[in-house]
Amino acid sequence: MGFWKTWFSTPESLTTSKTTSFEEHTAASVGNSPNNISETSSKEARIVFSTERDLDLYELEELCDAVGWSRRPLRKVKKAIEHSFLVASMWQVRGNQRRLIGFARATSDHAFNATIWDVVVHPDFQSKGLGKALMKYVLKKLRSEEISNVTLFADPHVVDFYRSMGFMSDPEGIKGMFWYPH
Amino acid sequence: MGFWKTWFSTPESLTTSKTTSFEEHTAASVGNSPNNISETSSKEARIVFSTERDLDLYELEELCDAVGWSRRPLRKVKKAIEHSFLVASMWQVRGNQRRLIGFARATSDHAFNATIWDVVVHPDFQSKGLGKALMKYVLKKLRSEEISNVTLFADPHVVDFYRSMGFMSDPEGIKGMFWYPH
Repeated sequence: MGFWKTWFSTPESLTTSKTTSFEEHTAASVGNSPNNISETSSKEARIVFSTERDLDLYELEELCDAVGWSRRPLRKVKKAIEHSFLVASMWQVRGNQRRLIGFARATSDHAFNATIWDVVVHPDFQSKGLGKALMKYVLKKLRSEEISNVTLFADPHVVDFYRSMGFMSDPEGIKGMFWYPH
Repeated sequence: MGFWKTWFSTPESLTTSKTTSFEEHTAASVGNSPNNISETSSKEARIVFSTERDLDLYELEELCDAVGWSRRPLRKVKKAIEHSFLVASMWQVRGNQRRLIGFARATSDHAFNATIWDVVVHPDFQSKGLGKALMKYVLKKLRSEEISNVTLFADPHVVDFYRSMGFMSDPEGIKGMFWYPH
């Protein structure tokens, strides 16, 4: 029950519902009607999104390992999640089993700008439109907070993916720039 | 006295001293020795930096007006300042008079990434190395917080300025991308 408890808990920094799901149908049965939890016990797998921050950091690390990211100290990952404006996770739910299959988070000034970091979809679930679904969920959440400028830094191989979602690179010649300590 | 009171107040999110100044000499007399405040009453102008968030929003708006930025609702500016990780301001101090001549702020996850926004230097004080001094102050503060990745989005005419400070555009093909609500 701990899972469902956090699943439906009230969001802190987001005013919209914490959990919505991939399909409208699922949204109706999972997101909006906690009384219908029994419905989620069917054996049919479904994809569910959440802004719950209380993630199992080892499960998140496993997801990041699966796409080959360098490991980061969990202490810092915990701090980053705590201080992100939005934390979005994507789950495969089958009966009362759930598996973390996607993640993204955003920093923000809560007013004008948000920057999306650490977008990841498990390789087993790539090329099924789920990355797009996760990003749509993130953008919907940010838009509901009246953030007017959503930014990110895209690796070369995902620039076209973000472009297909309406992101523009270097609009009006604005350049993304990086500085590393030396 | 209100000014000096906030000037030397304790920082919330930054552990280093809240106020340091442009010159080492000034740092000694202003930043480190509150007892020597009388020294600051000399008629010689000096440049002082602060991470104080309790700014006069009308004074900040005047500064942004001076460089031709579009006006933004002060309610949102207030919220953005509250939720920025770092707020840096640059002042010309002459006797007990002070004038806001520069500003910058950064969002962050407090762990890995920071993004610098709203860097502005009053036109009367440009081309004197003060933009560079302000950015050095910002980078020093972010580095003291162990932020490993500092980013920004630079308008075309300031790309070379940031490059001269060690920022790289599109490192390894990473592209800055923007999404606007539609």
